[in-house]
Parts: sequence; structure tokens; C-alpha cells
Amino acid sequence: MDFRSDNVAGAAPEILQAVIDANRGTTSSYGADPYSEKVERKLTEIFERKVIAFPVATGTACNALALSVMTPPYGAILCHEEAHIHLDECGAPEMFTGGAKLVPLAGAAGKLTPQVVRGLLEKTLTGDPHRVQPAVLSLTQATEAGTCYTPAEIVALAEVARGRKMKVHMDGARFANAAAHLGVAPADITWRAGVDALSFGATKNGALGAEVVVFFDEGLAESFVFRRKRAGHLLSKARFVSAQLEAYLADDRWLKLARHANAMAARLAQGLQRLPQVSLLYPVEANELFPCLPLDVVAGLRKAGFAFYDWTDAAPGTIRLVTAFNTDPADVDRFIAAAAKLVAAAA
Amino acid sequence: MDFRSDNVAGAAPEILQAVIDANRGTTSSYGADPYSEKVERKLTEIFERKVIAFPVATGTACNALALSVMTPPYGAILCHEEAHIHLDECGAPEMFTGGAKLVPLAGAAGKLTPQVVRGLLEKTLTGDPHRVQPAVLSLTQATEAGTCYTPAEIVALAEVARGRKMKVHMDGARFANAAAHLGVAPADITWRAGVDALSFGATKNGALGAEVVVFFDEGLAESFVFRRKRAGHLLSKARFVSAQLEAYLADDRWLKLARHANAMAARLAQGLQRLPQVSLLYPVEANELFPCLPLDVVAGLRKAGFAFYDWTDAAPGTIRLVTAFNTDPADVDRFIAAAAKLVAAAA
Amino acid sequence: MDFRSDNVAGAAPEILQAVIDANRGTTSSYGADPYSEKVERKLTEIFERKVIAFPVATGTACNALALSVMTPPYGAILCHEEAHIHLDECGAPEMFTGGAKLVPLAGAAGKLTPQVVRGLLEKTLTGDPHRVQPAVLSLTQATEAGTCYTPAEIVALAEVARGRKMKVHMDGARFANAAAHLGVAPADITWRAGVDALSFGATKNGALGAEVVVFFDEGLAESFVFRRKRAGHLLSKARFVSAQLEAYLADDRWLKLARHANAMAARLAQGLQRLPQVSLLYPVEANELFPCLPLDVVAGLRKAGFAFYDWTDAAPGTIRLVTAFNTDPADVDRFIAAAAKLVAAAA
Amino acid sequence: MDFRSDNVAGAAPEILQAVIDANRGTTSSYGADPYSEKVERKLTEIFERKVIAFPVATGTACNALALSVMTPPYGAILCHEEAHIHLDECGAPEMFTGGAKLVPLAGAAGKLTPQVVRGLLEKTLTGDPHRVQPAVLSLTQATEAGTCYTPAEIVALAEVARGRKMKVHMDGARFANAAAHLGVAPADITWRAGVDALSFGATKNGALGAEVVVFFDEGLAESFVFRRKRAGHLLSKARFVSAQLEAYLADDRWLKLARHANAMAARLAQGLQRLPQVSLLYPVEANELFPCLPLDVVAGLRKAGFAFYDWTDAAPGTIRLVTAFNTDPADVDRFIAAAAKLVAAAA
Repeated sequence: MDFRSDNVAGAAPEILQAVIDANRGTTSSYGADPYSEKVERKLTEIFERKVIAFPVATGTACNALALSVMTPPYGAILCHEEAHIHLDECGAPEMFTGGAKLVPLAGAAGKLTPQVVRGLLEKTLTGDPHRVQPAVLSLTQATEAGTCYTPAEIVALAEVARGRKMKVHMDGARFANAAAHLGVAPADITWRAGVDALSFGATKNGALGAEVVVFFDEGLAESFVFRRKRAGHLLSKARFVSAQLEAYLADDRWLKLARHANAMAARLAQGLQRLPQVSLLYPVEANELFPCLPLDVVAGLRKAGFAFYDWTDAAPGTIRLVTAFNTDPADVDRFIAAAAKLVAAAA
Repeated sequence: MDFRSDNVAGAAPEILQAVIDANRGTTSSYGADPYSEKVERKLTEIFERKVIAFPVATGTACNALALSVMTPPYGAILCHEEAHIHLDECGAPEMFTGGAKLVPLAGAAGKLTPQVVRGLLEKTLTGDPHRVQPAVLSLTQATEAGTCYTPAEIVALAEVARGRKMKVHMDGARFANAAAHLGVAPADITWRAGVDALSFGATKNGALGAEVVVFFDEGLAESFVFRRKRAGHLLSKARFVSAQLEAYLADDRWLKLARHANAMAARLAQGLQRLPQVSLLYPVEANELFPCLPLDVVAGLRKAGFAFYDWTDAAPGTIRLVTAFNTDPADVDRFIAAAAKLVAAAA
Repeated sequence: MDFRSDNVAGAAPEILQAVIDANRGTTSSYGADPYSEKVERKLTEIFERKVIAFPVATGTACNALALSVMTPPYGAILCHEEAHIHLDECGAPEMFTGGAKLVPLAGAAGKLTPQVVRGLLEKTLTGDPHRVQPAVLSLTQATEAGTCYTPAEIVALAEVARGRKMKVHMDGARFANAAAHLGVAPADITWRAGVDALSFGATKNGALGAEVVVFFDEGLAESFVFRRKRAGHLLSKARFVSAQLEAYLADDRWLKLARHANAMAARLAQGLQRLPQVSLLYPVEANELFPCLPLDVVAGLRKAGFAFYDWTDAAPGTIRLVTAFNTDPADVDRFIAAAAKLVAAAA
Repeated sequence: MDFRSDNVAGAAPEILQAVIDANRGTTSSYGADPYSEKVERKLTEIFERKVIAFPVATGTACNALALSVMTPPYGAILCHEEAHIHLDECGAPEMFTGGAKLVPLAGAAGKLTPQVVRGLLEKTLTGDPHRVQPAVLSLTQATEAGTCYTPAEIVALAEVARGRKMKVHMDGARFANAAAHLGVAPADITWRAGVDALSFGATKNGALGAEVVVFFDEGLAESFVFRRKRAGHLLSKARFVSAQLEAYLADDRWLKLARHANAMAARLAQGLQRLPQVSLLYPVEANELFPCLPLDVVAGLRKAGFAFYDWTDAAPGTIRLVTAFNTDPADVDRFIAAAAKLVAAAA
């Protein structure tokens, strides 16, 4: 009954099994193993074009390393003001890029719009040595608000970026949840829409610790091996991370796991919004929801053993619930029932 | 028959089992889990004093993060000219410290001496703003040459460092092999001898990917959580790394695994040095040996399916053989037999 | 008739003369000269307490170097959203601090308020490794809007910062103009009010190129000599910068020069605000004013040979006029007359 | 009678006069002034080809900024082990490049040879992610030993660098002294010989504080304006630095000033080497000499009021004498006479 985050969950059995299976014999270290090679091949298939892929163990590394080849130290990275790269990585992008500046922008329901991006860019003269130079637009898919950019929305945003010769990065820590929700080809919300590099997450969706930087723009990949090693993110026994990714990507497992998480969020949303005095802060599209409940109800739920975080940026009583690949529907139903009972008691 | 490195090996069964066992229920992410706590407690026991410990997934991260709290950006890190931090981490210490300078020093059999350290220090005026300021002495235990610093050697080196208010770091990627060889209390080759921070390795000795920074100087630990996160080295499902370390440290497993690797190296050394025309570059103390063989013999061994690296810094024919926690004695004997046959044929 | 900035002006004759006079004989280089020593002594007198002072040649260096000793790389520097350090230094603070994050805050007339600073701080958990840690509050005096913080305002802001163990930095590129306007002891708007370090400008107020970092908190000064050298800001013939500062500080010259600049701004403001259809964006306290004029008038003034910048962040027709230590009152009167004529013609 | 360094001298009268003359009217700040433009034009003439030039105020900035566009953070900069960039800039190149590694190489009389450079490169596998990648070869002209690379020597070294796609940087803090000694076209010891960027010094040779980065490879110049600003090295009243350079370059003044300094060094050398028991450590080609004298003589010279540094890397009694653009021949003769007298007395 732990809805704090999708990373409080353990690993999906098939992914753990792949790690177990990978523990056979000796193999070349530092990524020159057959597992790593297969990951790149599988991603090329999934994205319907040649990609260059680099497995790493954490999402922060995935984002910061990708960004480090997309901007010079004097560049600006435009992102949503609630973006993980801006708020929750203790300055990792600044460290990895040598001091680039993150420019936080506002936007409803966790999403940037072409208008707000254009507005910022109009204030920044290209070539003015006093100003950091816009270099990257970073989009989060699914967003921190649990919403998803549609292909058309990404196209429109990427066009604004292209107009200033900026690169487009996608923080896809929950890419699977977005892809599962949208039901479109992964290519349609990445390179075909103008995305140059994707931080493709697996950890929050059933891996033990595995993410992969996917470059659609091959030029960006050139210096990556050095930057990854230099950041301590080249694993010596890389097979144990790549094997996770291989299992994650096989048989649409990444989508299946995400579909379950999304379905559990939808089920929670459906159950909660039926209750009086309960509203949802954002549309529920991926595996997060932000219900606003009477404060007594929030306290009561905690007392009943449910774990979750307050969402302090919104009205008091707003909480964040995150579902995972292995969330038990019975737990969801228990949560709804408990909330219903508490709401009724409070009435 | 793969003697390229100890990281071509997989994981020890007990460590893998610990990962499997850790996949139970939800638990707090980012290191606030019971596994991580137990690791610190166990290390406190092993080192016979309160330590502060931070698990990470790679050795490069372990070293570079430790160093990042031991030197200012304008500091100098003195190390052996063959030190991993200087030669094999693509500049990670420079990146993590904000540009500190590594000062490589010569020394026989991979070891620094008080003389050479003192010599360098005498040339550097403390307080001279034109010069980087000596801040850290980094020792590798076991060394890159497969030798081990004795407690007395460490004491003598640390004293020189202390005399200049420098901190002492120990790169212990193969700390277990050194401790197993020396047969002394871990405290005697670390804090009791003057070491402030230890990069304690597990990956090369049976883990999937787990290392731990151990601080004996608590002041150094203060900013570590921020620097680790900022470097992308705080794992969200940290339990899967801490569980490895827990199993590694339990029941002297780290020493047992290292003893096997050391024994296999000794067995190889014994077998090889009996052969005519074969010499060993360095004393064999841990799990590496550097035999020098006739070039035809080297080629013949490769043809026979044995894998290993040439040691290009020494005379032609010098190779590096590394044994691991799970090296098969039969493979060792096969190697010796093959070498003997080739040497005889060459005679 | 050039009101673009105070740095389009040349040097005050007495300051240039000091440079000429300093060109005598040999003297120790790198700041170990008598001129540099006298600067520190004079500043100690002006600020009524022991200070540690480091001359540099540019304002950006002055700010970025000061900040580099006030925040760790994982720190946050809170500043006004129009602060020079945030908008106009191409990321210098990020570079010098190793990637600290500047957090821009809103505030009327270029000023921060305790409310807005407190609001931001309440959202940031101290010790949370995911977040950069609030380390510095940077105030600009005079502000980018040409206004001045009163002693009481600084005290109130510094108290909020102290409550979180943050340091307080003051960007005083136009400190002289603020001190001249306020007519208070320099100590009252710096260390007595809670400021730890001041970037004390001279270049905009009559020097050729000279600024000085003034530390009231001696601990901050410890590593400065290394950081300055490492940034290429230790001048070998430092006497030529220190001599400028010596002349600048002697005989209240810094205040006299600033008083003239301020008076010229006031005269411009008085003349312009008498005109119909002309308003001033901010109170005119130092040497900048931001009048809003009909667009035809703006164009007409340019045509008549007056040079100035549009202030694009405000309503169309808003321009920035900056006066200097040597602005000719006749030019001011010409500007007013020309504006009056154009306004009349437009009516 | 101060032979400590060429930077204990003041400024050449014509250069100071240019600064005085530049103090006229308002002019665009930040380098958009006519003085800066003329500097680039004059350098284009001197080097017989289009160059892109960026004035800065210090030699360390000049070197570190030039290097910052020539190497990625994971690059290696090869230089002589006594190079200023390695020993005397407190890690500035490391700071500006984001942590590149300086690789010090040995070489007689301050000079690198193709052999030693090739030897280092042969040990470094291009593309190996564990190793920093050779990116720049930095030559010092004149060297720290007061010797000069001939055109043929530079060609041979640059060829080795080119073979690995490395860039070639020249630290020309004393470029004028080298050019004056060699008597060749400046082009012949820079771009025609394979140099991509030159740190062209003026400060040590009569300027108050002025150096200029000269790019022969235009691609390198692209990001320079941002990096210079970001490092605090864009002067707001840039005219006062550019005016120095304009005067320095006009009428072969840079060569004339250097010729005087060189002649004074030669005169010293001639006078000293005639004395018994006195030897010179290196050939005297530019404006430095390293005589080795009996210790009593060294002490006696100091007592007699002569100022100079001990050269501690060589045999006791070795000192460094540096002459400047304005060294008085009478001082030189006094030094020789005093030394002669002391040597005679000691005999």
C-alpha cells in the first residue's frame, strides 16, 4: 500500500531473471559484451531507425550525460519549471555540462507550450556574449504532472527549438508510461517529432537500475563514451545492466509493464473522482495522479497505513499517488474504499 | 581461461542471491532502505570504529567522489604514475573535483615512497598562488602492480602527507586482495595508519556492481550526499547495490573470495617461475601477476585460447594475468601446462 | 550625448593620472606592491573595520570570484531575476562556482523582499540531496532598476539569509551611486547590515578597469588568492589596477564622482517627467532612469544623435538612460529640450 | 637593479601614452570600439593572413581561454614539464577546459622534441574511453629556459600533433623576444609552421596589462566571445587594453622593445661567462639567463642590492636573471662588475 513512487517497487521477475541468466562465464567488460550490443539492436527496431544507445544505471546520469553533449558550457537548457533536471537532480546538468544554465519555464499540467518557449527565446539575442545561448529544449515525457505530450505538441515545440538551432532532449524516465498511454509508435513521439536524444527509463518501470541514452542524432554520440567514463558511469560488469534492458525491451515488456501501472492509476482516479469533495489536479494519463482531498481524509489514509507524498506546490490536501508495474489492484481498491469511508465520515 | 581482468568474471552466487532476496516488497528509495543502513553498521564493525559509508555502483565514481571532498579545485592529488585515477578514468577526478591536478610520481613495483612524495612537496611552496596546493595523497591498495603496502609503509607515507595537512585517500578497488594477503586488521592499513577515506571495492571481487566510499574522517562526509546525487550516483533502487555489499561483507565473504583469487595468482606464479626463460616483473602478492615470456610462447598461449593483456609498459613478452574469486584451478593448471609445453618447444 | 551606459565613458583624470604616476621604477608583481596594500588599508578605513580586499579588472570577475568562495558547487544563489550575475555574465557564476544554480526571484523596482526570499526557501528542504542547497543571497546595490536598498531593507533580507546559514553577497558595480544617494556610512549598507562580501565597482564610475572584492567575513578570503590566479585574474603588473583604486578611494573621490552621475540622472528625470505623456518606470535614485516616451519621440531623439538602449522588458517606448561621472549637464539639457520639442510636435 | 622578472618593470612610454590618448569621449564598450578593431587588422598584417584576435588583460587568461576552445574536457594537453600553463597558473587550464589533463613531458633546455611527444602518443590509444584523448600540443615560445624554437623545430613538432588530429597552441608570453631573436617572419613560427592559436604577450614587454589570443584556425574562434565573457575577461572599457596593443604592434615597437631586452640578456651573459667559476645553464637566446655562480657570490650580489630569483630546479647557485624592454645597460654593467669583484674575492 505504498504509493510514494514507482521506485519504491522492486524489480519485475523477468528482468531479475535476465540478471541471473547473465551470470554465466566470463565476458568482456565495460560494455563490449553481447548484451549491450543486443540492446542497441533492439532499440533500432523499436524506433524504426538506426540509433546509438548507451546504457547507464541511473536516470540522473542518463539526463545529465545526454545534455552534456547537447550544450556548450555557455548554453541554456530550457525546461519546465517542475522538470526533474531542474528541481530534483541537485545540479547534475550544471555539473556535467560544465555550468550551463537551466531556464525554467511555466506551463499548465507540467507541459511547455510553443508560446512560452518562443517568448523566452525572443528575449535572448543569439550571439550576444553577455547571455547564455539557447542550446537545448528539454521535454519530460510523461511529465512530472503525469500528463503526456501528444505527437503534435512535440512537433510544435521542436519546431520552435529548430528555428534557433537548438537540440531537443526528452527526459523519458517514464517514457514507457507515455508511449503506453498514447498508443503511438515510439518514433512518433521522438525523432519523427524532432527529438534528438532520449533518456529512456527502465528503473521506475521494473528494472533494478537501468536506463539508456538513445541518440537519434548520431553526431551527438561521438564524445559520449569519454563523458560516460569520466563521470564514472561506465559499468565494468556492464552485462548486468544491459541484460536488464534486453529483458525490458523484449516482447513489448516495457509497454506491458507500463500499461499495468497506467491502468492502476486510472482505476485509482476513477474511484476517487467519484467521491464528493475530491478533485484531481491534472488529467490522469500515465501512472501518477494528484488528488485533492479533505485534510482529515489525508491524515486518515496515512493512519490506515497508506504511504504517499503531499504535493506541496498545490492546495493543502493535494497528494501524489504513483502506481507501478506491479501495483496490486487489491491495494488500489483498498485505497479507494478507505478514502470513501473517510470522506463519508467527514461529511 | 580468461585472465584479462577480474571484471570479466560474473558475480559470486551468494551475492547474486542477496540481490534476488532483496526483491521483496516496497522499500524507501535513494538509500533510505534497511540494506544500506546495515552496510554502514557492518563496516563500522569491520573497521573497529564508526565510519560513514556511501555505496555507489562503480569504482571510478567511488574514487572521484571521495576525492571531490578531499581537495579544492586548486588542489593537487599526488599519486603513483600508474594509478588508476590518473591513467584509467578518463579524467574523472578532474571532473569531480572541478579541475584539481593529479601529480603522477614514480615508484618501483607500483608503490610510492616517502622519499618521492617528500621530494615533490619540497618543490611546492604552500600558499604560493601560482601553484596548485598539495591536498591529497592517494595510495592504491593493492597496487596496479599487484603488490601491497604494508601497515608501516602506509604509516610512513601518511605522515609525510599529514606534515603538509594533506588528506590520505586509498583506492581499494582490490582492497580485499590486499587485506587477505597481509592478514592484518583492516583498520591497520586504513585509519590507524592515517587513511582518511577508502574506496572499498566489491565489483572486481564478486559483486555485480557495488563499491562503497568509507570515510574515517567524518568531516569529509558532510557534503557527500549532494555530490553523489549531483553526479548521478545515488541509485533510486539502492537496495540492489546495498544488498550486494551486505552479502559481500557478511561472514568474511570479501576475504574468502579474495583469498581464492590470491591463491590462484600464487599458483600461476609458482608454476610459471619454475619455467626457464620466464621471469616475474613484480612480487606476486594479490591477484595479478606480470610474467615475462618468450614472444612465441605468448602467441602460442593466445592461440591455445587463453585470454590476457600485453603489459606494454614493460619489456616485450610481458603480460598481465588477473585471477578472480571464481578462477578455476584447473584453468590455472592448464595455463601452466600450456606455457611449459610452449617454452620447451621454443628451447 | 551618449547615454547608453556608464561604461561608454572614459576615465576620470585623477584616476588616469594615478596610472601615469604608478609607472615608476620596478615593483613586485602579482599584487605584492605598495599600491595594492594601500587599497586594502583605505578600504578598512572606509568600512570602519578590518577588511580583506582583492583588486581585479572586471565586474564579472569580481562577482564570480566572490561567489565562488561563498557557495559549494551544489549550492543555490538567490538573486533578483534581473540581476547582472543571472542575466548578463554569460554564466560566469556557474563557471566559477563549479556549477551552482542561480535562482532568479521577482521583485518590484529591481529589489528583492524578505517575503519572496522566504517563500523560495520554504520550498527547499535543507539537507535534501535531490535539491541544490541555498547558499548565497546576492543583492545588487544600486539595483539594475537604478534603485537603492535602504539599510533597513538589507538588514531584513540578510536576516532571512542568516536564518538558513546562507552568506550575503552584494553586487556593488554601482555601489558608489547607492552610497552617494543614501548618504549613509558604507558600513551601514554592508557588514553592519549583514553583508559578507562586496563586489565594489570602480570601472563604471571613472576607472579604466578596476574593481575590488571586499570580504567582511575573513574566512571567505582564505582560498581567494588561488581562485583568482586560477581564473586568470591576478594581474602581473597589478600596480596599474591598484593605483586606480587608490585614486578612486582617496578624498571621497568615489562618492564625488557618483554624486555627479546621480545628479545628472536626477536632472534628466526632473526635466522629462515634466513633459506630458512621459512617465518614469522606477524611482530615480542612482544614475539610471527608465522613461517611457511616445515611440515617435524615441525615434526622434535617436535621429537627433542621442544614444541609448530600448528597455525591452517594459512597455514599448521605454528606454534606459545612464549617466556617468563625467556627463555634461549641457548634454542633459539638450536631451530634455529635444524631448520636449518632440513631445510638443507629437501632441 | 631588479632582474626578478620582466613583469616588475612598468610600461613603455609610448604604450602608456596610447592609454592616455584613448581617454577621449565615449565609445562602445565590451570591445566594439575602433581600437580593438585596429588590433585585429594590424595582427592580420603582421601575420600575413586573416587572423581572429581577442584582447585580454592577463597571460593566464590568454592561455587558458585559448586552450578552452582547443580541447574537450576529456582531452589531454601535452606540454613541457616546466611550461607556465602546467606549473604556474594554479590550474587555470584545468578550470577553463572543464578538467582537461596536462601531460608534462621532459626536454632539454625547455624544449619538447618530436621524439618525446611521439613516445607519449604511442602509449595512448585513440578512442579508448578509459584514457583522456590527446587534443593539444602546447609549445612555449620563447621557452621557460629562455631558448627559442626554430621554424623547423616547430614544423616537426606540429607534424606529430597533426598526425593525431591534435591542435597546436603556442604560449607566446615572450613571443616578441623569440621573434626578435630568430629574425624570421612571425608567420614562419606560427601558422606556417602548424600553429593554430597563439597567446601573444605584451605585458612582459612593455604593456600595462595586455595580451591577445590570435587564432589562425577560424573555427576555433567561434565560441570564444562566450567563453571570454563567462570567464570575466571581457573588459567593459576594452579600449584601454586595445589601445595598448595598438601601440605595441605599431612601427615594430613589439620587436624593438624585445630586441632591447634580448640585448641586455646577451650583454649580461657575455659579461658573466667570461668570469671563472661561472657557467650558464642554457643558451641565452631571449631575455632570460640562468647563470650558476658560487653561493657566496649569489649572496654578495643580493647584499649589493641586486634582485633576482634562485633557480631551485638546478644546481645550488643557479639563479634566473630576466631583462626587460627598459633594462638600463648601466645596471647590467653594474651587475657584471659586482659579480666579477665577488668572484675574484672568492677565488
